[in-house]
Amino acid sequence: MSRNIQVSRLDRRAVEDQEVEIVERKGIGHPDSICDGLAESVSRALSQLYLDRVGKVLHYNTDETQLVAGRAAPAFGGGEVIEPIYVLIVGRATKEYEGRQLPVDSTALAAAREYLEEALPELEYGTDVIVDVRLGEGSGDLQDVFGEETQEVPMANDTSFGVGHAPLTETETIVHETERELNTTYYADHPELGPDVKVMGKREGDRIDITVAAAMVDAHVADLEEYDDAVNGVREFVTDLAESHTDREVHVDVNTADDYEEGSIYLTVTGTSAEQGDDGSVGRGNRANGLITPNRPMSMEATSGKNPVNHIGKIYNLLSTHVAETVTDEVDGIRDLQVRLLSQIGRPIDEPHVADAQIVTEEGVELSAIEEEVVAIVDDELADVTGVTRRVIDGDVSTF
Amino acid sequence: MSRNIQVSRLDRRAVEDQEVEIVERKGIGHPDSICDGLAESVSRALSQLYLDRVGKVLHYNTDETQLVAGRAAPAFGGGEVIEPIYVLIVGRATKEYEGRQLPVDSTALAAAREYLEEALPELEYGTDVIVDVRLGEGSGDLQDVFGEETQEVPMANDTSFGVGHAPLTETETIVHETERELNTTYYADHPELGPDVKVMGKREGDRIDITVAAAMVDAHVADLEEYDDAVNGVREFVTDLAESHTDREVHVDVNTADDYEEGSIYLTVTGTSAEQGDDGSVGRGNRANGLITPNRPMSMEATSGKNPVNHIGKIYNLLSTHVAETVTDEVDGIRDLQVRLLSQIGRPIDEPHVADAQIVTEEGVELSAIEEEVVAIVDDELADVTGVTRRVIDGDVSTF
Amino acid sequence: MSRNIQVSRLDRRAVEDQEVEIVERKGIGHPDSICDGLAESVSRALSQLYLDRVGKVLHYNTDETQLVAGRAAPAFGGGEVIEPIYVLIVGRATKEYEGRQLPVDSTALAAAREYLEEALPELEYGTDVIVDVRLGEGSGDLQDVFGEETQEVPMANDTSFGVGHAPLTETETIVHETERELNTTYYADHPELGPDVKVMGKREGDRIDITVAAAMVDAHVADLEEYDDAVNGVREFVTDLAESHTDREVHVDVNTADDYEEGSIYLTVTGTSAEQGDDGSVGRGNRANGLITPNRPMSMEATSGKNPVNHIGKIYNLLSTHVAETVTDEVDGIRDLQVRLLSQIGRPIDEPHVADAQIVTEEGVELSAIEEEVVAIVDDELADVTGVTRRVIDGDVSTF
Amino acid sequence: MSRNIQVSRLDRRAVEDQEVEIVERKGIGHPDSICDGLAESVSRALSQLYLDRVGKVLHYNTDETQLVAGRAAPAFGGGEVIEPIYVLIVGRATKEYEGRQLPVDSTALAAAREYLEEALPELEYGTDVIVDVRLGEGSGDLQDVFGEETQEVPMANDTSFGVGHAPLTETETIVHETERELNTTYYADHPELGPDVKVMGKREGDRIDITVAAAMVDAHVADLEEYDDAVNGVREFVTDLAESHTDREVHVDVNTADDYEEGSIYLTVTGTSAEQGDDGSVGRGNRANGLITPNRPMSMEATSGKNPVNHIGKIYNLLSTHVAETVTDEVDGIRDLQVRLLSQIGRPIDEPHVADAQIVTEEGVELSAIEEEVVAIVDDELADVTGVTRRVIDGDVSTF
Repeated sequence: MSRNIQVSRLDRRAVEDQEVEIVERKGIGHPDSICDGLAESVSRALSQLYLDRVGKVLHYNTDETQLVAGRAAPAFGGGEVIEPIYVLIVGRATKEYEGRQLPVDSTALAAAREYLEEALPELEYGTDVIVDVRLGEGSGDLQDVFGEETQEVPMANDTSFGVGHAPLTETETIVHETERELNTTYYADHPELGPDVKVMGKREGDRIDITVAAAMVDAHVADLEEYDDAVNGVREFVTDLAESHTDREVHVDVNTADDYEEGSIYLTVTGTSAEQGDDGSVGRGNRANGLITPNRPMSMEATSGKNPVNHIGKIYNLLSTHVAETVTDEVDGIRDLQVRLLSQIGRPIDEPHVADAQIVTEEGVELSAIEEEVVAIVDDELADVTGVTRRVIDGDVSTF
Repeated sequence: MSRNIQVSRLDRRAVEDQEVEIVERKGIGHPDSICDGLAESVSRALSQLYLDRVGKVLHYNTDETQLVAGRAAPAFGGGEVIEPIYVLIVGRATKEYEGRQLPVDSTALAAAREYLEEALPELEYGTDVIVDVRLGEGSGDLQDVFGEETQEVPMANDTSFGVGHAPLTETETIVHETERELNTTYYADHPELGPDVKVMGKREGDRIDITVAAAMVDAHVADLEEYDDAVNGVREFVTDLAESHTDREVHVDVNTADDYEEGSIYLTVTGTSAEQGDDGSVGRGNRANGLITPNRPMSMEATSGKNPVNHIGKIYNLLSTHVAETVTDEVDGIRDLQVRLLSQIGRPIDEPHVADAQIVTEEGVELSAIEEEVVAIVDDELADVTGVTRRVIDGDVSTF
Repeated sequence: MSRNIQVSRLDRRAVEDQEVEIVERKGIGHPDSICDGLAESVSRALSQLYLDRVGKVLHYNTDETQLVAGRAAPAFGGGEVIEPIYVLIVGRATKEYEGRQLPVDSTALAAAREYLEEALPELEYGTDVIVDVRLGEGSGDLQDVFGEETQEVPMANDTSFGVGHAPLTETETIVHETERELNTTYYADHPELGPDVKVMGKREGDRIDITVAAAMVDAHVADLEEYDDAVNGVREFVTDLAESHTDREVHVDVNTADDYEEGSIYLTVTGTSAEQGDDGSVGRGNRANGLITPNRPMSMEATSGKNPVNHIGKIYNLLSTHVAETVTDEVDGIRDLQVRLLSQIGRPIDEPHVADAQIVTEEGVELSAIEEEVVAIVDDELADVTGVTRRVIDGDVSTF
Repeated sequence: MSRNIQVSRLDRRAVEDQEVEIVERKGIGHPDSICDGLAESVSRALSQLYLDRVGKVLHYNTDETQLVAGRAAPAFGGGEVIEPIYVLIVGRATKEYEGRQLPVDSTALAAAREYLEEALPELEYGTDVIVDVRLGEGSGDLQDVFGEETQEVPMANDTSFGVGHAPLTETETIVHETERELNTTYYADHPELGPDVKVMGKREGDRIDITVAAAMVDAHVADLEEYDDAVNGVREFVTDLAESHTDREVHVDVNTADDYEEGSIYLTVTGTSAEQGDDGSVGRGNRANGLITPNRPMSMEATSGKNPVNHIGKIYNLLSTHVAETVTDEVDGIRDLQVRLLSQIGRPIDEPHVADAQIVTEEGVELSAIEEEVVAIVDDELADVTGVTRRVIDGDVSTF
């Protein structure tokens, strides 16, 4: 077998070199990200359930969580949720196997609770948020085989498409890191910062504007002065972080919609705008690489919640990103790389119809000089396509 | 003011002396009782919320909880819930008062969680059971006043009827105590006994048959032998208990529907049949005195969940029972007493259209000899009608 | 086989002769009755579905419909529903039989729609009311056999109790007929009358007070004057009707809570109070004979929605009423008759533990003179116990 | 005022000239499109409701419909739905204005019913599909002004981005027209074709593969032979249609997953895969121009259901497409045009931060020759930004 791997010159400038660049990341507490996170954690839990009980992953898809916003009355020092958020976990799952019932609903709910408690610690499960579940049985004609002794690479049963790119531009890096660092390093010392952090990056030429909308948690904010301190704290942290990633001019704005005179500020009880008026659903926010990048081709596929054994869209989106990162890690001279995978119905998924690596080389680097190396890496990664499945089930890869 | 209190001879034999008597009690873990308990705990929580926030109880009614059964796979040593129980809390509540939002939904959910955790400790909130809530706003023309400085007795706005009786017959006592003792004293040493204990008493002449259906909790039952021990333990306990309340002949059956050969036994994961196929709702089980007594007049009114400030049906059912008990406690010579209260629209509820005490005296006791005393007690209790409201809000009185 | 049929003297006065009598009927448009009607129509549709598809009635119970009230803005000449009523049909049903799927959910919804369109013609299905359904699978160990060639009388698997009585007292007759006639004869010429008619009858000695609460439909009421005419029309009709059934003194009140000065009247868009704040559920209103009669023993059993093949509570409540009516139709000299049926676990349901006819004879009639005739009729009716099932499935008998 | 309009050369080949092109369109009966269509029809109905009642469009967003698939048992000649599809309409809407209640829930449901009856005529509303609604109140600080006398262009309150392009490539045209023509012209004579038509186009060089998945409606298909005829009919129709739009080599496949031997065919009761296992939600399918085009930049924004008065993402996506189409209609010499609009917080939305027209000219055409004309058209269209709002409310523009 020889895979159809093509390397070609990308017929545009590297995104880093384009005039205008827009990048966005919805933080883990954003209503759409909450749904992505729930869908993926439910998916992981079901994969694990099937592996534990029947030794292989059975048919399921849980990529349709819907969040209906609640109502809240935040107040300095601590307000309260008035109407709970309502979350409906939707999907398909195999509920019976060889006469044995499988607790898919209970498993889904347990995973949802665990996820919410970790991702949104201020949100009280069962009172601030109601989680309901509607998992129907699928068509039943699919029987998945991951985990079996005689494990084989599954066949593509659909024409599907995945796209990944690397390396991240400075703006992409800053946007991604801003959210990640705020929600980990910064949060560790600043409990007033809620997980609903939305970061928008806009670069025009050599100026980068970072706009952060950060939900503050009222229990940790005594008054307007403390709120103002909290906002300033975020701005300083993000400014430092951004400047460590670029030599361009950086401007950071935090909670620009605030109007202190009107008393209109971004204060929340639970740290997410889902508590008051912002609904959410799966696949509406970040792409599989954690970013929204209108400058680049993106797949519409909702990656989170899909079955990682046989859903080609999920596998190819994660794999193309992984391939792009691996290539740029290992091969010098690449300024921008875009990897596309297109499935071929009826063929094993490690033999795509086409695997296509499009490259903008760094100045002075010939494509021909690196082509062979690139093909080899792509080939290796395709050969290990089931590694994606394994990493997803183990929770080692983020899908949003 | 002089209340219309009538004392008369009850024109039938005392229930204790009738030939056939049937009595039933659904234990706190029965699906209907779960709904009663949830409705009443939500009601208490809302009363308290209103008192805390606005100093008086506002309009609400939460007497419509619906439970949809789940599915479970019990197994010796510990099985699991497959599909969660779904509970929908339904009712009306005032959500805003003088421009201030009141967290009625969140309060209802918190009360539900607390209640379930106490009443059904094996049931995991949020995974074994989903609690949802639909509390609409009422018509808004009602403004209740309990708790205000200028507290007055509310007016009756409906023709409503309450009925109570005392003393309990032997069979009633046994049925009531069986469930209460099993779920407290016995449970303390026997964690295998679930709270879904249903007790049916049937007396024919001087023979009392007690039939107990008791859900066993699988985590505490290793095998069929232990199950059989558990059933026998209950039977012995109930037999002793029953015999301490009567000199009549007592027969006790426990889990009669079991068929060991077929492997059909009453084993559960959570201690309630709601986990597998038994739905429930408010007002379908025990009456306000904790019993179902077809030998006696009963009110159809669902007492649990009703607003204790202005719902006459609730107040009169609880009050008539309380009056009956007080009278028989304090007055000698009463073999059977039935108290009926009928409201008069447009009059304060402490002035019923008629308060009617019907009595079967003990042999040798003339009605005229006790009439005055009875009237005085009824009058006192009616004068303290708001005491019922207070005891309900404080949780000092059971409604099912 | 000889059935255990006992005839005895009822040890109380006939209800007709008691001093105070209270009777109530909730009309078909009352929220509780809507639920009863839905539950029973769903039950009939499922019975029919099973008979059509597999030739026998399979296990189901649909006795748990929950209605959550909507919000409406009625207005003279025609207002509108603001928030729809939400109805949740709850129960158990067999969804698969010998590998064949049975459309129980769709059948339930179709039955609900048909019922609502007939019972509440002003209520637009799907916009004024949302009907949802949660029918789980039951425990599966029950296999019902009605409709099979080798049809046999089912066995009692529970201790259950039914009670019926006849003849109706004057007050009972008036209350029952008032609602029935208003919703048929009167409605035919008076489209302004909605089906939510609640009738309360109270008799003290020889005075009967009938209180009617009648929801008027705004599209047919142009102004307050027409509303007043509508109320007066009902009062006159009911007065005439009542006087045709009694020589006692009759007083009729209609919509007594109205306050024209305050603009508080009983005007609705759809003819039911469910549109604005009144929730409902099954088994909370009328007993199997269509009335709530606190002067008489009543079963707590919710008759509507239960499986008519094997639910003893349903069968015995309907049968005892039917027996009582048949006996008083055919035997002279009975002033009050109460029939009780008590099941015997493990025996066919036509062989109750005890069938007990308690009688108040008319003056001058000896019980012994009619006893034999009564026993014979009871025996015949018990022998035809499956006739109840048949009549229920055919829709020939009302359950509420 | 002078708008910031930039015209530049697009730094890539025209999509028509790229080596590989992928295009997809989900037909109106696809579960995701059903949600898009419902969300947008609810949105239009609410806009109209507000205009009718208060003369201006109030705050709302209804871009979150969730569809949970049902279960069905299709059969030649006509099968049946077993479990209904469940649709939850989610969003925010203003329910009260100047003390007046607005029937937003009922309006949403009525719009949903009307839409479904038109788009999916085989789907019985209320029995094959349950539509539920959860529209919360928004944050309330937004007051929209469209429709007022003093109508002004709204301010941008968010950084948002829209992208459109024109002309469509041959493959895009074929994919789009295939679905449109099948669901109108072809359907008129072929009732066996359901509206769930999914079209995938893949072009490699000069070969175009069109893959159609078309749900057939069982009531109009008597047997496998008729089914095969139906599939062939679609293939021939699509082949002719495609060849009328291109001189390239065209291959058409229809229902490739069918396996006649296994009896696995794409037969449905209602014409949509939502009846059996395929869930759906808003914004997961077609972009605002009706296509999914991974070769082009796409906005992640869910256009359907958003408020067309003040939601910049919706307006800019529709407007950029409209601008691109107008420019290519009126200006000769453009081979590929991409229009991007980026909002500027705090400025009227007709003054974007940047409006950017990137062009691939036809051979021999200089960009400078057409630049001025392009700028003028873009300027005109921006000046008429509220025209988008008007067309959306009137239903003159498709959003998916």
